Amino acid sequence: MDGSASATRTPNDPQALLQALYAEMRPHSLYPLWEVLASLVTPSPRSAARPHRWSYAPARDYLLRAGDLISAEQAERRVLILENPGLAGSSAVVPSLYAGLQLILPGEVAPCHRHTQCALRFVMEGDNAFTAVDGEKAVMRPFDLVLTPNWQWHDHGNASGAPMIWLDGLDIPTVRFYEASFAERLHEPAHSETIPSGDSMRRYGRNLRPMRGTAADRRPAHQPLFHYPYAEWRESLLALAAAEAPDPHLGHAMEFLNPADGGPVMPTIAAHVRHLPAGFETRPRQATDGTVLVVVEGHGTARVGEAEYRLEERDLLVVPSWQSLTLAAGSRMVLFGYSDRAAQEKLGLFREARL
Amino acid sequence: MDGSASATRTPNDPQALLQALYAEMRPHSLYPLWEVLASLVTPSPRSAARPHRWSYAPARDYLLRAGDLISAEQAERRVLILENPGLAGSSAVVPSLYAGLQLILPGEVAPCHRHTQCALRFVMEGDNAFTAVDGEKAVMRPFDLVLTPNWQWHDHGNASGAPMIWLDGLDIPTVRFYEASFAERLHEPAHSETIPSGDSMRRYGRNLRPMRGTAADRRPAHQPLFHYPYAEWRESLLALAAAEAPDPHLGHAMEFLNPADGGPVMPTIAAHVRHLPAGFETRPRQATDGTVLVVVEGHGTARVGEAEYRLEERDLLVVPSWQSLTLAAGSRMVLFGYSDRAAQEKLGLFREARL
Amino acid sequence: MDGSASATRTPNDPQALLQALYAEMRPHSLYPLWEVLASLVTPSPRSAARPHRWSYAPARDYLLRAGDLISAEQAERRVLILENPGLAGSSAVVPSLYAGLQLILPGEVAPCHRHTQCALRFVMEGDNAFTAVDGEKAVMRPFDLVLTPNWQWHDHGNASGAPMIWLDGLDIPTVRFYEASFAERLHEPAHSETIPSGDSMRRYGRNLRPMRGTAADRRPAHQPLFHYPYAEWRESLLALAAAEAPDPHLGHAMEFLNPADGGPVMPTIAAHVRHLPAGFETRPRQATDGTVLVVVEGHGTARVGEAEYRLEERDLLVVPSWQSLTLAAGSRMVLFGYSDRAAQEKLGLFREARL
Amino acid sequence: MDGSASATRTPNDPQALLQALYAEMRPHSLYPLWEVLASLVTPSPRSAARPHRWSYAPARDYLLRAGDLISAEQAERRVLILENPGLAGSSAVVPSLYAGLQLILPGEVAPCHRHTQCALRFVMEGDNAFTAVDGEKAVMRPFDLVLTPNWQWHDHGNASGAPMIWLDGLDIPTVRFYEASFAERLHEPAHSETIPSGDSMRRYGRNLRPMRGTAADRRPAHQPLFHYPYAEWRESLLALAAAEAPDPHLGHAMEFLNPADGGPVMPTIAAHVRHLPAGFETRPRQATDGTVLVVVEGHGTARVGEAEYRLEERDLLVVPSWQSLTLAAGSRMVLFGYSDRAAQEKLGLFREARL
Ligand SMILES: [Fe+2]
Ligand SMILES: [Fe+2]
Ligand SMILES: [Fe+2]
Ligand SMILES: [Fe+2]
Repeated sequence: MDGSASATRTPNDPQALLQALYAEMRPHSLYPLWEVLASLVTPSPRSAARPHRWSYAPARDYLLRAGDLISAEQAERRVLILENPGLAGSSAVVPSLYAGLQLILPGEVAPCHRHTQCALRFVMEGDNAFTAVDGEKAVMRPFDLVLTPNWQWHDHGNASGAPMIWLDGLDIPTVRFYEASFAERLHEPAHSETIPSGDSMRRYGRNLRPMRGTAADRRPAHQPLFHYPYAEWRESLLALAAAEAPDPHLGHAMEFLNPADGGPVMPTIAAHVRHLPAGFETRPRQATDGTVLVVVEGHGTARVGEAEYRLEERDLLVVPSWQSLTLAAGSRMVLFGYSDRAAQEKLGLFREARL
Repeated sequence: MDGSASATRTPNDPQALLQALYAEMRPHSLYPLWEVLASLVTPSPRSAARPHRWSYAPARDYLLRAGDLISAEQAERRVLILENPGLAGSSAVVPSLYAGLQLILPGEVAPCHRHTQCALRFVMEGDNAFTAVDGEKAVMRPFDLVLTPNWQWHDHGNASGAPMIWLDGLDIPTVRFYEASFAERLHEPAHSETIPSGDSMRRYGRNLRPMRGTAADRRPAHQPLFHYPYAEWRESLLALAAAEAPDPHLGHAMEFLNPADGGPVMPTIAAHVRHLPAGFETRPRQATDGTVLVVVEGHGTARVGEAEYRLEERDLLVVPSWQSLTLAAGSRMVLFGYSDRAAQEKLGLFREARL
Repeated sequence: MDGSASATRTPNDPQALLQALYAEMRPHSLYPLWEVLASLVTPSPRSAARPHRWSYAPARDYLLRAGDLISAEQAERRVLILENPGLAGSSAVVPSLYAGLQLILPGEVAPCHRHTQCALRFVMEGDNAFTAVDGEKAVMRPFDLVLTPNWQWHDHGNASGAPMIWLDGLDIPTVRFYEASFAERLHEPAHSETIPSGDSMRRYGRNLRPMRGTAADRRPAHQPLFHYPYAEWRESLLALAAAEAPDPHLGHAMEFLNPADGGPVMPTIAAHVRHLPAGFETRPRQATDGTVLVVVEGHGTARVGEAEYRLEERDLLVVPSWQSLTLAAGSRMVLFGYSDRAAQEKLGLFREARL
Repeated sequence: MDGSASATRTPNDPQALLQALYAEMRPHSLYPLWEVLASLVTPSPRSAARPHRWSYAPARDYLLRAGDLISAEQAERRVLILENPGLAGSSAVVPSLYAGLQLILPGEVAPCHRHTQCALRFVMEGDNAFTAVDGEKAVMRPFDLVLTPNWQWHDHGNASGAPMIWLDGLDIPTVRFYEASFAERLHEPAHSETIPSGDSMRRYGRNLRPMRGTAADRRPAHQPLFHYPYAEWRESLLALAAAEAPDPHLGHAMEFLNPADGGPVMPTIAAHVRHLPAGFETRPRQATDGTVLVVVEGHGTARVGEAEYRLEERDLLVVPSWQSLTLAAGSRMVLFGYSDRAAQEKLGLFREARL
């Protein structure tokens, strides 16, 4: 493909002339589109990301071993990245999103900081650790969803007597892609706890909000809520499941909302939960959003494209863009998921096909 | 002011000439702006509406007497209009809004219909009657807020053993002003109860919604919720009250939200609740929205412009546009209010002044 | 209907009891809904407004006579109100809107002021007078549309040698209805002319805008444009007319847009233009917006409900809500119109029927 | 870093234990965050993209040589990719955007197709070739901007007698990142020319639009306009330049707008033009959007971070995220630019600093 090889051809050979052209252009940062167009604009998504399942038990074991090796000072980093096997070196679970399992041991504290990356935490096990956002603690119970949105101060701590493990879902690759990462540390180790726990839920979580323009309207107008407790979403989901037949492609499925606008929980990340009755099998569905699923309850199997996975409680599954997904529930299954659908809808890119 | 009077003046008298011009123009539906401009474009609002308080006990007595006189067939109309004393003949409580006290006796049913008027109901007394919206019953308990939005089927019934009284808040004058009233009756007496009570709250009331595009996402996208129970809003309001000092002008004040967009509950009507600690007195505040307040709990006094009113439980008070309001709580007070602020903000007209 | 009359009936007569009840309630500002409900919530709009046509020639004559009688100091008020004959005393052309014909004589100036009422001017005759908005003059040529939006400083002047007449279209009744009128005068007679004429059009009128966050982005973000010249809209409209068959109900019809959001020109008022080929007759159409039409070119007839009107150049026609409108063009007709559709759409009230 | 190396250490060596852990985890697609966190969440953007200038003359030469070698059938691909030297192999000019120089020879046609990638064309030289969007031709003149938005049919042709070269600006890397590429060909070689050229501009380009709900409102509601002629934007820009001093950081700068909503021209790409008076030098400015600039007129120099470039007419410059940019105009300069700011603002990521 380089100039020396083409030198052996006759000067009028078209391929040779092209290769010579390429070789000349290359130092000028000019490249022939006609050699790569087919791979750039494909008739349907050709994801580099691959489906993959992480069984929880071994991942947990590695994480606890890391807990023995990584000091408390590094506690905020004691996270195992769930890297997509098709995206080696990217630290990404799908191209635009990150997933990690974080361990926080009793007594540990992660110092207060903020960044332009949006994060969600989904509690895998443990109880009564906390995430504080702008000085308000969310006490984290199993399967709670907690947000730390773009540029809001946050710190974590585990005042309980047992280790806590949660799933971190972030848009790190998105922010890197747009080259828009900003971060800073608070000079104190922790934001002072200025607000009692549960305050935001009481102010913004019940289809009410403090009157605009008063001091009581204290959270960012575009992001008033950051805690979606399991006790709440489970009740809604099970009530929906009791009320009607599952959607053939989704089961019983509910999205988490930002009460400021009725849209997804953060500008880049959407989150949802699903319920599948025992024995129910979905029909295949494709969607362009790359999705991470967590088994909250039950067991079953997932078919993603050609691959099939056994799913047990707390297992994690990544479903890349446009890969057909079928879920079959061995027992009643409850799943949590997050994806880049929020970004894709804003950018005009989201599509789905129900087969 | 008419031609005959001016005939006695000299023909060159400017006033006479003007009067003659007016008399000639009038049959052509042409009128001089310069005679009325000052009253049309005023430096600040000059409300025709007047402040007024309705004591609940006598209003209730009249309503019960009407209950004896008005047959069950007219039950849907067994309502006393709270007409603003400054707006005689308008059936309006402020120029754009209507307020009425409705009585529904045990066993009565109001037939199913719909209209372009938006309505809210706020329960004054009684328990376990219902409003059904598009076939889903909201079981109405004291101080619950229930919406029947524009063009949604609704019917009411009282299957309890006691009379129920609620406040109707509608935008009847708004729809009349825009000459946009449409209404129709369902051919059956009641919409079939297709949906179990509480279903909308479970689907849309907990910062979740059924996944878009599924059959489970059954309510109108722009108006998913229609029941805001007292048990819920009271808890939020009291929590806010426990957390911090009252706003000097509002006390502890929370707005009801439409979870579809984080805006007011209906396009024309906004609703809110307030809490005043015992002994607290607000500073005066003016706002352009015409507001109806209901005392849910406690007693105190209100100063509206020059007038002062004693307020007892369930009393109703109307505060017209730009009239200065001061509230003083004798005991801990809880109030519910609704106003045309939702419309005014959309039209670019809302203003307030905190004195 | 009063107590004395009912005294002659037997005490058990139901009508008598009701009348007695009404008489007792009335001083308490309580009224029976069942007596008026049918008139409040009608199955379709029952407009008090009536259709009406103002022939331009006689209206112009009256206006010029007023010009002789009303001094220059009152020039800003030298306006004939086009009052709807069904809305006596309201100064309204449809319930929510105002229309007037304003005369401004050579050398006159209307002092600078602002108010919460939104206004549009549509030039009927004359050339080269101006409206200045926030210190920028729009030189007004025949059939130009000029806006003076809510709370923006404006003054008018006629530096030409001939009288100018324009149509004023305002939302005065809307602002009065919401009791939200604020107005003030600038202390100087005219806003200093800080901006060259045409500047806003060059900055915001060509699908461009100054980069956000620079001093060059000088107009209100929500309302950057205030001049829509005839030369521009006529070219667009005639091009549309040349390109395709007229819409059966509207002819060739184009709406004016606010480039800030692609919506109507002001929050309360929408404006549009229409073209009807010679000989074309529209099919009847009903809409809930109350509309004022001006004949810019040509002649024809309008049927509004049961009434029929001959239309000549510069004649004005009001079409109330839900009155069926049919237009027939004797020669090629061009019309300008404005209505309260902007408000009605925001409030969820707009409807139309194409018959 | 692998297990064998660590085997030589003592078993209790913490580094050895960590390395052993890493080796064990790797096959499970689990990786230690603490090794990479600092590179993922940086205190400010650390762009892989590098500044670069493409001189037009040599790029044009290569392109014309490609024109001799690449057949007419491949005309649609006869494009030189301007690949960022810091993003080797990506075909990207900044991480989220693509830039290419396309040659279309007299008589050539690029067959009709559509894709989810958004594209803009900016004419570098030649006259009277066309892009047709959904069957309407935009006749392309030098420095015109033409859009082919997401999923709209488009084809190109050169019916003139001279070669035409334009800049292609697309969001190819964005669509690839989100794995959301769909594309298809029309079965005919070209979309039938159903609409006369200039029709969209006349319908949507003059602060008017066809009345909603009529057949005349024929373009997608969210994207009515696709042609922004040089003759128009130049006039606006020069008028702005004549009216006031340049912004210290931007010069005279105007954004192109989508008249549907007043926002950027496409969901992922924003475009703008700038004017710098002769001798003017901007102060440095940083912004997170990656930007491609084209010199339309004049010459000068650009400093991007540490690098400095001489700019001549038609030269192209890429300014990566957060690199400080200073422009100095030798003669009066006019520039066109496009960037991913549209996407960044939707995702909450855009920032700028004016130094
Ligand atoms: Fe963090
Ligand atoms: Fe009703
Ligand atoms: Fe005015
Ligand atoms: Fe293309």
